[in-house]
Amino acid sequence: MAFGWIDEQAELRRRAGLVRTLRPRPADSPLLDLASNDYLGLARHPEVAEGAVRAARTWGAGATGSRLVTGTTELHAALERELAAFCGFEAALVFSSGYAANLAAVTALAPHGTLVVSDAGNHASLIDGCRLARGTTQVVAHADPEAVRKALATHDGPAVAVSDTVFSVDGDAAPLAALAAACREHGAGLVVDDAHGLGVLGEGGRGAPHAAGLAGADDVVATVTLSKSLGSQGGAVLGPARVVDHLVNAARTFIFDTGLAPAAAGSALAALTLLRREPQRAARAREVAADLYARLTALGLEAVRPHAAVVAVRAPSPEGAVRWAADCRAAGLSVGCFRPPSVPDGISRLRLTARADLSGDQIERAVRVIGETRP
Amino acid sequence: MAFGWIDEQAELRRRAGLVRTLRPRPADSPLLDLASNDYLGLARHPEVAEGAVRAARTWGAGATGSRLVTGTTELHAALERELAAFCGFEAALVFSSGYAANLAAVTALAPHGTLVVSDAGNHASLIDGCRLARGTTQVVAHADPEAVRKALATHDGPAVAVSDTVFSVDGDAAPLAALAAACREHGAGLVVDDAHGLGVLGEGGRGAPHAAGLAGADDVVATVTLSKSLGSQGGAVLGPARVVDHLVNAARTFIFDTGLAPAAAGSALAALTLLRREPQRAARAREVAADLYARLTALGLEAVRPHAAVVAVRAPSPEGAVRWAADCRAAGLSVGCFRPPSVPDGISRLRLTARADLSGDQIERAVRVIGETRP
Ligand SMILES: Cc1ncc(COP(=O)(O)O)c(C=O)c1O
Ligand SMILES: Cc1ncc(COP(=O)(O)O)c(C=O)c1O
Repeated sequence: MAFGWIDEQAELRRRAGLVRTLRPRPADSPLLDLASNDYLGLARHPEVAEGAVRAARTWGAGATGSRLVTGTTELHAALERELAAFCGFEAALVFSSGYAANLAAVTALAPHGTLVVSDAGNHASLIDGCRLARGTTQVVAHADPEAVRKALATHDGPAVAVSDTVFSVDGDAAPLAALAAACREHGAGLVVDDAHGLGVLGEGGRGAPHAAGLAGADDVVATVTLSKSLGSQGGAVLGPARVVDHLVNAARTFIFDTGLAPAAAGSALAALTLLRREPQRAARAREVAADLYARLTALGLEAVRPHAAVVAVRAPSPEGAVRWAADCRAAGLSVGCFRPPSVPDGISRLRLTARADLSGDQIERAVRVIGETRP
Repeated sequence: MAFGWIDEQAELRRRAGLVRTLRPRPADSPLLDLASNDYLGLARHPEVAEGAVRAARTWGAGATGSRLVTGTTELHAALERELAAFCGFEAALVFSSGYAANLAAVTALAPHGTLVVSDAGNHASLIDGCRLARGTTQVVAHADPEAVRKALATHDGPAVAVSDTVFSVDGDAAPLAALAAACREHGAGLVVDDAHGLGVLGEGGRGAPHAAGLAGADDVVATVTLSKSLGSQGGAVLGPARVVDHLVNAARTFIFDTGLAPAAAGSALAALTLLRREPQRAARAREVAADLYARLTALGLEAVRPHAAVVAVRAPSPEGAVRWAADCRAAGLSVGCFRPPSVPDGISRLRLTARADLSGDQIERAVRVIGETRP
């Protein structure tokens, strides 16, 4: 029977305790949220929601076509200008998701003959970009500029190194300055995914490349998502204007995808406006993360020192992690639970996210619940 | 220099007359739109825009996380139920784009050892799905069930055939019933992309699989986009519940992507509600397409007989197509212009889209302009 093998796989997953199920949440969930990527608490901020409202009423519910046909509105252009200006890059190109932006950046910048040096901890969308690219990928050890340098030395011809700036699972940071130095020694380009850096790292949330002095460099390309700190949906590639022009002409997930919905563009733009006015939100998110880390490790829990707003706490096993997260939820706390196959190293963890708008009381409550429910 | 090769490619494109540039449109464009994929004229329908407004105010601007963490709201669940019910499938799973839905369907349903038989005219997102899938892809002649049958006969083991229902460039239809028969002879699954069929084909716009009696079959999976007839953004996979459960557990563009923005889910749901109330919109879109085709061919232009709402008109050359589209635009008419490398066969064309809300006068004007500006 067609698709018969699916049932066998489902049975294997069930036996391994690795079944994933969707849990639709209500609009007025009573849970304290330490699971979302809404780092600045902007997704439900009235100004950001009204950015979506105004855009939907002015421009309609959809972009109506691909960006090169009817899908580019003046709103998209305004968002691109503001993203570039805010993050310190010459130009920006908006996509329907951060995932699509990453596929575009890697595939379009790594044609046949290119060596792609990819960090072992990179996000799935960068990995899929490497798989789709015509160039040859070499996966190197996590956060290891020396490994990147060595890989680049083996290759004669165009090359590009690809890395998350803040790794999505553990929240640890890539050694950006050292990576850039390694790339420059070899004339290679550097593509960094700042999905978890934008809005959190750098002056006023301008992101990790800005913080590292790499924004605007002619050999650095950054991708961002509009769906985390900015509380919306979508993604963007930031870089030299010539790179953006190249993507317009060559990136399949740009050319063959409908433009981002005006509401999403409008809310992302509203979030950037708010962040310019309230730059302290970025530092506050980092502060909350540091506070969570300090309190959790003081309880004897094993956690990764946070570089941005993600705090990963080690769990004893996949089942242990699932039970821990369920016990937290029963106690009113929503936490992320990452386990195989979503974690490359096979280690299960609770993934907590710091939000700039968490109060001291909420942090205390979260830490208490996590401590009391530990397996 | 890093990315130095980009300038050479840009120069080649310039010399070949193949440079693409973005043209941001204003909210109150005076152009008559025969270029967008807003087939039912719903993108700017007040009810659809208010669906986005309500959702943004109720749920916030973004989904805040991946679907398995915080990104599934009750609104997403309601949209999935309604999509499945409307199109006649057991279950549905919503993605951030139709592109992501196609990547998910093909990769998750074609693991290692699977043969993927893919139509030569398939959309870029299905092609990228084939490239990412661990199975082996065999590309077969366009719209040729006999070729599919032959390809399936060469393989022992799981297999799946993949096809657009309505091909995006020419608007021609896949022979769905014959494809399904070929697949069933070999116990293969059938995955069809109904991006341009939903809202236009089938009773009240229920789509091509519904029209072909294939909706709800246990060996048929359909993908749709929310960004064309429904005037919003996003995509979905429709199929048996076990297939949807499998995607939840295995599809990377589902697991590692932020959930669709509430505003986009809300407007798509509003569009479906409207389409249930006004089912005649689907037939009207087809009628407008047939009318456009009849009038254009009466002028001696070479066009492809439309099966849905897309009418492709042949142009003499890439430059001829670009000039033709520009002349139409100068005369107040927006048309699509497809040319290499976006067209697999190298033939440039104007791509016109019929909208259910075009008046007789508008159709007449469009045809007059296209005729008067022909190269
Ligand atoms: C590091 C990283 N890059 C890219 C993405 C994809 O972005 P989006 O969800 O906006 O598609 C994510 C998460 O979803 C991520 O964690
Ligand atoms: C046939 C087909 N499939 C899939 C897509 C992708 O859908 P979306 O634009 O919603 O990502 C498109 C167009 O964009 C298309 O024409």
